[in-house]
Amino acid sequence: MSNITKKVSWSSRGDELGPVGEGTPLLNGSEQPRHSRQFSEGGSLFQIDRLSTVDLEEEISAEEESARGQPKEIPHNSKLLSLKYESLDYDNSENQLFLEEERRMSFTGFRCLEISRWLICGLIGVLTGLIACFIDIVVEKVARYKYEAIKQNIERFTEVGGLSISLILWAVLNFSFVMVGSILVAFFEPVAAGSGIPQIKCYLNGVKIPRVVRLKTLVIKVCGVICSVIGGLAVGKEGPMIHSGAVVAAGVSQGRSTTLKKDLMIFEYFRRDTEKRDFVSAGAAAGVSAAFGAPVGGVLFSLEEGASFWNQMLTWRIFFASMISTFTLNFFLSISHNNTGDLSNPGLINFGRFESENLNYNLYEIPLFIAMGAIGGVLGALFNFLNYWLTIFRIRYVHRPCLQVMEAMLVAAVTASVSFTMIYFSNDCQPLDSEHAEEYPLQLFCADGEYNSMATTFFNTPEKSVRSLFHNQPGTYNPLTLGLFTITYFFLACWTYGLAVSAGVFIPSLLIGAAWGRLCGIWLASLASAGSIWADPGKYALIGAAAQLGGIVRMTLSLTVILVEATGNVTYGLPIMLVLLTAKIVGDYFQEGLYDIHIKLQSVPFLHWEAPATSHWLTTREVMSSPVTCLNRIEKVGTIVDVLSNTSTNHNGFPVVVQVSENDEPSKLCGLILRSQLIVLLKHKVFVELAGSRLTRRKLQLKDFRDAYPRFPPIQSIHVSQDERECLMDLTEFMNPTPYTVTQETSLPRVFKLFRALGLRHLVVIDDANRVVGLVTRKDLARYHLGKHGLEELHLAQT
Amino acid sequence: MSNITKKVSWSSRGDELGPVGEGTPLLNGSEQPRHSRQFSEGGSLFQIDRLSTVDLEEEISAEEESARGQPKEIPHNSKLLSLKYESLDYDNSENQLFLEEERRMSFTGFRCLEISRWLICGLIGVLTGLIACFIDIVVEKVARYKYEAIKQNIERFTEVGGLSISLILWAVLNFSFVMVGSILVAFFEPVAAGSGIPQIKCYLNGVKIPRVVRLKTLVIKVCGVICSVIGGLAVGKEGPMIHSGAVVAAGVSQGRSTTLKKDLMIFEYFRRDTEKRDFVSAGAAAGVSAAFGAPVGGVLFSLEEGASFWNQMLTWRIFFASMISTFTLNFFLSISHNNTGDLSNPGLINFGRFESENLNYNLYEIPLFIAMGAIGGVLGALFNFLNYWLTIFRIRYVHRPCLQVMEAMLVAAVTASVSFTMIYFSNDCQPLDSEHAEEYPLQLFCADGEYNSMATTFFNTPEKSVRSLFHNQPGTYNPLTLGLFTITYFFLACWTYGLAVSAGVFIPSLLIGAAWGRLCGIWLASLASAGSIWADPGKYALIGAAAQLGGIVRMTLSLTVILVEATGNVTYGLPIMLVLLTAKIVGDYFQEGLYDIHIKLQSVPFLHWEAPATSHWLTTREVMSSPVTCLNRIEKVGTIVDVLSNTSTNHNGFPVVVQVSENDEPSKLCGLILRSQLIVLLKHKVFVELAGSRLTRRKLQLKDFRDAYPRFPPIQSIHVSQDERECLMDLTEFMNPTPYTVTQETSLPRVFKLFRALGLRHLVVIDDANRVVGLVTRKDLARYHLGKHGLEELHLAQT
Repeated sequence: MSNITKKVSWSSRGDELGPVGEGTPLLNGSEQPRHSRQFSEGGSLFQIDRLSTVDLEEEISAEEESARGQPKEIPHNSKLLSLKYESLDYDNSENQLFLEEERRMSFTGFRCLEISRWLICGLIGVLTGLIACFIDIVVEKVARYKYEAIKQNIERFTEVGGLSISLILWAVLNFSFVMVGSILVAFFEPVAAGSGIPQIKCYLNGVKIPRVVRLKTLVIKVCGVICSVIGGLAVGKEGPMIHSGAVVAAGVSQGRSTTLKKDLMIFEYFRRDTEKRDFVSAGAAAGVSAAFGAPVGGVLFSLEEGASFWNQMLTWRIFFASMISTFTLNFFLSISHNNTGDLSNPGLINFGRFESENLNYNLYEIPLFIAMGAIGGVLGALFNFLNYWLTIFRIRYVHRPCLQVMEAMLVAAVTASVSFTMIYFSNDCQPLDSEHAEEYPLQLFCADGEYNSMATTFFNTPEKSVRSLFHNQPGTYNPLTLGLFTITYFFLACWTYGLAVSAGVFIPSLLIGAAWGRLCGIWLASLASAGSIWADPGKYALIGAAAQLGGIVRMTLSLTVILVEATGNVTYGLPIMLVLLTAKIVGDYFQEGLYDIHIKLQSVPFLHWEAPATSHWLTTREVMSSPVTCLNRIEKVGTIVDVLSNTSTNHNGFPVVVQVSENDEPSKLCGLILRSQLIVLLKHKVFVELAGSRLTRRKLQLKDFRDAYPRFPPIQSIHVSQDERECLMDLTEFMNPTPYTVTQETSLPRVFKLFRALGLRHLVVIDDANRVVGLVTRKDLARYHLGKHGLEELHLAQT
Repeated sequence: MSNITKKVSWSSRGDELGPVGEGTPLLNGSEQPRHSRQFSEGGSLFQIDRLSTVDLEEEISAEEESARGQPKEIPHNSKLLSLKYESLDYDNSENQLFLEEERRMSFTGFRCLEISRWLICGLIGVLTGLIACFIDIVVEKVARYKYEAIKQNIERFTEVGGLSISLILWAVLNFSFVMVGSILVAFFEPVAAGSGIPQIKCYLNGVKIPRVVRLKTLVIKVCGVICSVIGGLAVGKEGPMIHSGAVVAAGVSQGRSTTLKKDLMIFEYFRRDTEKRDFVSAGAAAGVSAAFGAPVGGVLFSLEEGASFWNQMLTWRIFFASMISTFTLNFFLSISHNNTGDLSNPGLINFGRFESENLNYNLYEIPLFIAMGAIGGVLGALFNFLNYWLTIFRIRYVHRPCLQVMEAMLVAAVTASVSFTMIYFSNDCQPLDSEHAEEYPLQLFCADGEYNSMATTFFNTPEKSVRSLFHNQPGTYNPLTLGLFTITYFFLACWTYGLAVSAGVFIPSLLIGAAWGRLCGIWLASLASAGSIWADPGKYALIGAAAQLGGIVRMTLSLTVILVEATGNVTYGLPIMLVLLTAKIVGDYFQEGLYDIHIKLQSVPFLHWEAPATSHWLTTREVMSSPVTCLNRIEKVGTIVDVLSNTSTNHNGFPVVVQVSENDEPSKLCGLILRSQLIVLLKHKVFVELAGSRLTRRKLQLKDFRDAYPRFPPIQSIHVSQDERECLMDLTEFMNPTPYTVTQETSLPRVFKLFRALGLRHLVVIDDANRVVGLVTRKDLARYHLGKHGLEELHLAQT
């Protein structure tokens, strides 16, 4: 137990506790007997693997810095809940300082703040749009060079033989790009891997994921996604935009960058979790908006993932950020496409305009759509299932950065080879059509004036392939091509997701779905009489794409709106909804959504919308951590330092009581103080001398707390002399005198509702005389979930 | 004070209190000295006009029934807050009965409940769609007869003279329809007047508006809206759909109808405010969806107006209801239009398909759009300003049903005359075009093969006129026609809104806006070089329509999405957003939105999203009602009856304490019980006899409470004998043992957040020893608002 992490967010519990700090009056050390009525038992209560790399929103000591390059070992068992994640504080600590500031502020002051918020949201939108624009232009230009080069090479060698040289050229090009991207991610910022959507989901849910909104993460994410898309992996550049937008928002709203060591001294009011999280919501929305040209979808995404409480003005601001983002992207892309000022094609991905005659659908098609939704659900569940086991394999065996880079390079080479092989052996030749011209038509072994149809799907960026599948004329693809493509791309995409590269899963999912959807369309058309237009393959490609994506990510309302906005036409709203609903129901029967799987594998204490249905059995008494480390309103500095230094508990919030009693009896609650506040107080040595109060000391202001936010120094870095240990600290002014409380009899769903709706971090449990008897934190609530055999309790782990 | 209403929702306060009931230990009778720092003082604290017609979710006594036909006199001063409105209870009363039931329920049980919820939402969607379909078909058919008849008449008299006969025919037809509609509304169900959107906003906000979700209201609303649209008033049939959807939802979800005296014995679990409100949200969304073909817009409308807390499954269900509703409408309309199964044109109003070449907009048009938004804001504020004074005039002088009917008839006649005059004196003749054929082209004095252009706007249902303005070829209207039309229709619409007829303001607003928007387009096109397509008048008509509607109703996100969905194309999303944002900012500078004005004029205690910005000065101590009427855990029946019968207080929630002390000292909180629960207990005589508990009495179940919901009998109808008065009642099992509490020091914004986020009705204020010192209810929080001179406090009124 000695190598326990320095910064475990929540109180530890169970019987494996380390020595209790001397100065700590009450500790969450012993656990009360628990009424475990129907919980599964199994596995040790604790599973401590190794020293976790500390929460890096904190200062990082040199020793930890060296360990950072290494991947974190995460528990293999998804039935664990990690204690290493801290919670965000969405509830303002309304202490005297805060109230004084708010009361000093005039109405004009509040209006100025509101205007700043709008300004920041505008800025977030502009920057997110620019980043999207940058990614898009770079990818497009470099991909063009790459494909042109390979195309020329292939053309040269098609006649004379020696296409293996082309294959090698292709593989090596992909290989190199992916290597660069993978090295950046694996060695410099592992949190930039993947799409970042699970991380942003967690952040918006209220979990502090270390380093997730850092500038460095953004830079590596952007470079990484460019490399992996150009590297020809089965990935999209859209997912990472959400993460990028969030980072931009977190940076802009704080008016400073710790990475660049630059403080602009503006927007200081927004330096707290409450405000920051609102802006991060706006950033995520702006990211979605830039990625899919879906401003409304972006707002809904943010709300679905993050909103504790719907606030009209906040929503409207988020919408503004989204709008500006898509507008900026649109405008700059129109310039780069020499079409300045034409703003009708927003978004990185655009599904293209569906022609009116293909748009209509008929009543008898609804069951077909639903059936396709079910297929999407099954295929999505299969995808998630394979990826789940692959991820566990990776956690166990591929956890060194160099192994991760090698795996990424292997995938790149395999992707190139498979693509090449598929194209090589395909004999699906189509006449070159001037109207729907392919960008890189490969003639290969086709007759003159024809091109290889398989190559349109593999030999292009995935975004372009999706558009081809949606819009190419009926008859452009033959069924065998589509079938083979679906199967290979399915496995490639599944293998790719979770690699140490920055990349999204949206576009590959859409591509797989579009391929089998088009296949369905062709099959249906062959059943119908000739010349019938109802089974337009493009339409079925769209439905298939929606079904596959829905089956994999299981998003609901927001995804519907995103897809509708990306098609640019609301006529398909209804079928897309039905398809997504079916895909979700069918998929949920087998497996959770992909993002939820990855969140679970990281053992993040994620709070869902409601407490599990059958949790009325539980009351706060059984759920809470108890006993609680309390502090006196006027407390000895030594005691505070000891409590904070106690590595075995590492609480972040301490109820302040009137007088801690000697015999561990509970005493009356009078406030709540956070670790971060105590640290700042200690740093500024706000002590009352024993001989009498030293009146000369500077009065601490809210600004001091804000300056320290969000990377409060660890307690170890604060030196307190032996004399000072004997001083007293008066917490009255700094504690939150009105924390939310519940009683021990409150049922779990009720506590859950309060906690979730208000975005709390600590909820004090009191008895009938207002005495502190326990504390409820995120992990206490996230622990319970509905398993196959009723209510299950996750085990807490330090890693 | 003797004629005070029987059912005033909240505790009254101030110095005008009536005699205090003997058995009441503590009463909210006297008011504590209040720190009124910057509140405006002026006007009497109470303004009691007359006996208010009681909350009709309760049983109605014969005397009140007779008074119901008469309009309620509402306070003329918008700085009042009425005490007559009750609050909804969005927080479950988690008493022992409830917990026992929840604990008995297996996981399968919860799953069945969830399936029922989906079923109900589907049913809500189908029924709402059918109602919309019914309204649409009836209006279309009857309007066709009407316009054909008038057209033939006009054609007959154009040559021979005597057009005054046509005018009289037109006026009389309108007159009669409006009379029927108006009599229905004014005499039978005044709450069915208007669009119902303000009422639904209030309901979703948590205010119980009497009779608003009754079946009778629905029937009268549907008939009324048909009459007023056919009667040629400047109204739309879309707004009332929202109300209709809500009534359908409230009815279906309860599985019974009190009006029809039919209880299907299903969905009993949903007989409480929490569940009912969720369904009403779904119903309102389904209504929006059916009206505008905007399922996503409907969901957003419900969330903007109603969501305390965003729940993913709930949102998804609401979406389902919306989807089914638009689908049903679509399907049945396609049948009635002999185009069975074509589902591409959802919604009562459809803006028609915008052609691709008109769709594009360019960067330099953005400032033009913003300017139009500003114009819309100014015109909207003017509209609201005029309507505000008109409404006050109506409240003062037009409050008898017969006067209301006469006013409506007058408006109908004036509308017909003005329309006729405008058409008569217009000399804007346009050639008959076979492509964009008008439905009722009036030749009048035009040459053969031409038609009167003014008649296309006036001589049609407003929905059709909007479409004509959007889609007719450039040059169809001359500027003078449009200008005159805008002015006359503006005043007609303004006069019409607030009449005692069922009708919406959406379509008239769109029509006004489309007219001046098209005017702008024509003007801009004349500035540009000839042949330029950029200033397509249809495009500017759309922007103008958005600006005008936004300026009047000031909805934000939901309105954007509704308009985007109604145009069927997301390309205009950006400009519409910008326009709505500008219109809202400009409009808010002058005046509130139309719905908010009407809510304010009704003195409804409406809770906004956040507490006023500068309200950190206030703490719970100053806000709460105190002292509070408390009950003992084991209380004498006589005391309870006395407390409930006390007409001067009429509290609805009572903190239960361990032991009420003799000298009004606060005592320890142990629960909270509602008036409705006590009524049920008294009705079932759940008494403990003094000689010992009578063990034979039937154990009360949750079902007994549900059966009584929502119309709990008044206390007067319950007979308690003198013997029984001496019995005791044990409240332990029935009270909510874990009510949410706050301390006296909590700031107003903090209390507000808790109250609003959890949808509470009563919030108990305790001191540091858990003793009850006050109670916060809706009116305590809704009282404070930000006026021109800082924070203002509304006065409480009994009416």
